[in-house]
Amino acid sequence: MGRCSGHRSEGFTVGSAELTTFGQWGKRSDMLVHEQEPFNAEPPTDALAGQAVTAVDTFYSRNHGPIPQLDPAAWRLRVAGLVDRELELSLTDLQDRFEQRSLVATLQCAGNHRSGLLEVRDIPGEDPWGPGATSTAQWTGVALADVLTAAGARAAAAHVAFSAPDISTLADPAQPYGSSIPMSKARSGEVLLVLAMNGQPLPAAHGAPVRVVVPGYIGARSVKWVQGVTVQAEPSDNYFQATAYRLLPVDTDPDTAGPGVGLSLGPVALNSAVLRPADGAAVPSGPVEVSGYAFAGDDRTVARVDISADGGSTWAQADLEEQQSPWAWRLWHSRLTLPIGRAEIVVRAWDSTGALQPALPEHVWNPKGYVNNSWHRIHVTARS
Amino acid sequence: MGRCSGHRSEGFTVGSAELTTFGQWGKRSDMLVHEQEPFNAEPPTDALAGQAVTAVDTFYSRNHGPIPQLDPAAWRLRVAGLVDRELELSLTDLQDRFEQRSLVATLQCAGNHRSGLLEVRDIPGEDPWGPGATSTAQWTGVALADVLTAAGARAAAAHVAFSAPDISTLADPAQPYGSSIPMSKARSGEVLLVLAMNGQPLPAAHGAPVRVVVPGYIGARSVKWVQGVTVQAEPSDNYFQATAYRLLPVDTDPDTAGPGVGLSLGPVALNSAVLRPADGAAVPSGPVEVSGYAFAGDDRTVARVDISADGGSTWAQADLEEQQSPWAWRLWHSRLTLPIGRAEIVVRAWDSTGALQPALPEHVWNPKGYVNNSWHRIHVTARS
Repeated sequence: MGRCSGHRSEGFTVGSAELTTFGQWGKRSDMLVHEQEPFNAEPPTDALAGQAVTAVDTFYSRNHGPIPQLDPAAWRLRVAGLVDRELELSLTDLQDRFEQRSLVATLQCAGNHRSGLLEVRDIPGEDPWGPGATSTAQWTGVALADVLTAAGARAAAAHVAFSAPDISTLADPAQPYGSSIPMSKARSGEVLLVLAMNGQPLPAAHGAPVRVVVPGYIGARSVKWVQGVTVQAEPSDNYFQATAYRLLPVDTDPDTAGPGVGLSLGPVALNSAVLRPADGAAVPSGPVEVSGYAFAGDDRTVARVDISADGGSTWAQADLEEQQSPWAWRLWHSRLTLPIGRAEIVVRAWDSTGALQPALPEHVWNPKGYVNNSWHRIHVTARS
Repeated sequence: MGRCSGHRSEGFTVGSAELTTFGQWGKRSDMLVHEQEPFNAEPPTDALAGQAVTAVDTFYSRNHGPIPQLDPAAWRLRVAGLVDRELELSLTDLQDRFEQRSLVATLQCAGNHRSGLLEVRDIPGEDPWGPGATSTAQWTGVALADVLTAAGARAAAAHVAFSAPDISTLADPAQPYGSSIPMSKARSGEVLLVLAMNGQPLPAAHGAPVRVVVPGYIGARSVKWVQGVTVQAEPSDNYFQATAYRLLPVDTDPDTAGPGVGLSLGPVALNSAVLRPADGAAVPSGPVEVSGYAFAGDDRTVARVDISADGGSTWAQADLEEQQSPWAWRLWHSRLTLPIGRAEIVVRAWDSTGALQPALPEHVWNPKGYVNNSWHRIHVTARS
């Protein structure tokens, strides 16, 4: 099955053929599937609402190639490059020789809410993700920093690259998936080599037996099925680091841009979304509960969320819920009183520096459709 | 002399009475003086243009009380609170007992470019700073982290407060100026106790004999004439930390808000400005050189600057100049071709996360007029 279509608007109307179960990857049956192969799917916004931690069957799934089924007993992690001691670690080595750590972290696809950009201009060849390419889990594993220390990573090395076995034919040329992060982030302690998700062994669709989780960075850096960690002087030259996942100037042709053009994406930019009510919903007039998430990347936090029931003419502050960790999204809720008729609900967030999201998708449109962090707008109809 | 008026627009027309020399504080004669007492002045934008480091006589000056003239020989820094050893350090102690460090860092007032917000709605009692409440210097002194280590700052302490002798009657109640920063920032190494500015002993107007410089944070945290460093569990309860320098909700009355309302400002939010040509200037038609700064707070960097010659309809990327340090602004320049007539030049910047500044001052207006980081717009007239 090719790309799904029909939900370029945020109403998430999907073809009935896609409302099947996705037992193969352990996903709930109402996932919005953008592609079956590679498997790319997000939950309906309602399924994310009010859940500080997302159930595994609801967690969005973003893939660039076929999902590999690896034998945990045969799996090895090779740590090499600018290190004093190359390592080859089995799953048992990771479990027995390193401290086990847990943290709650939100992952977010750089293409989250691309659908909003498609209303400005088409973005050929990229999936129309809604605001549900974002989920939160409790991740358990070992700190990458501890593994780097065990290997004696050299001080001069500025980057840590990850490699995986899933070959992507979307890359040019076709190649296994890979990425890298700066050494300062790799050393930070919050970057994990993850063995378990929400207290269960990692499922295949999420990178079993071991994946990287880089809290606060775009999901593309959290490499699944990781097999190689390479300490090096330069960023990865993998297609998905050097060419894809870059913010290109508006007038750039992504098919000819090549490596190194534009801005390499790492930390997530401040964003927010309404999760409930759903876009296009009919609601009773009078007080209605509105809820959603806000997320500030890396070391920033969400400091304030504003909600408008009249398209942005007037605003009230939403109530912020407790954050599960510094790396988790901040859920919020608010009670709005809607007059009978159609209403535009808008959300916008401020981070801990007092910075506000940009207002409109036309301000942030870019040729690959990344980082749509413009104010999220939904339309509902209040009935008597 | 009271507030100056007459330059709420960005044209910087000031009363002739203020175009005197400011020899008392060592400032150039064309500074735009918002208040004589306390002395608050910014350079004309043209004076900042193209200078990676700002001359001392051009560096903006923001004060909350009378500028004290301290005797360097009698000056002492008292380090107290949650420490193993209280310290009392003389200037000689700082010079002889600690490593001397230098870094180039930009300081920026939280009220920088408040003038743009005044076009949305009045902000009584606050000075109408233009985009020149921003300057960059080379700062030399000792790392606060080294002094905290010498004092044995306790692990449980989360904040470091600074106190100074300049009493501000703007505070309620009147009190000496003070602020605080999180311990993680205080420990970072880039926060300096500064003795010299651009290679010269610190002048009185900039905090002689010793000031704090907190790179990447709003200028209000870089306390001048510092005399006290207190390691503590909570943020400072000083008026300028607890009540002022907070981003208040739009409908809040700042006169009655009291401590703890809104968002405490720390790291600077991404912003940018056109420095040359000046707003309102007449320029020749055809190619014209446009230049300015962009600044991303704390650990973010400026990744891209766009410039428009037609009010934001079309954009080109500006050329970014080398940054003097990770804590310095990023200067940029571009050559625009202007048709004869009036043109609106607009600048906007992206940070290293792919986040863009908000477009309009009405999006960011707040009752105290802080963090106007909306796109900077100037108007020029091109003549044949």
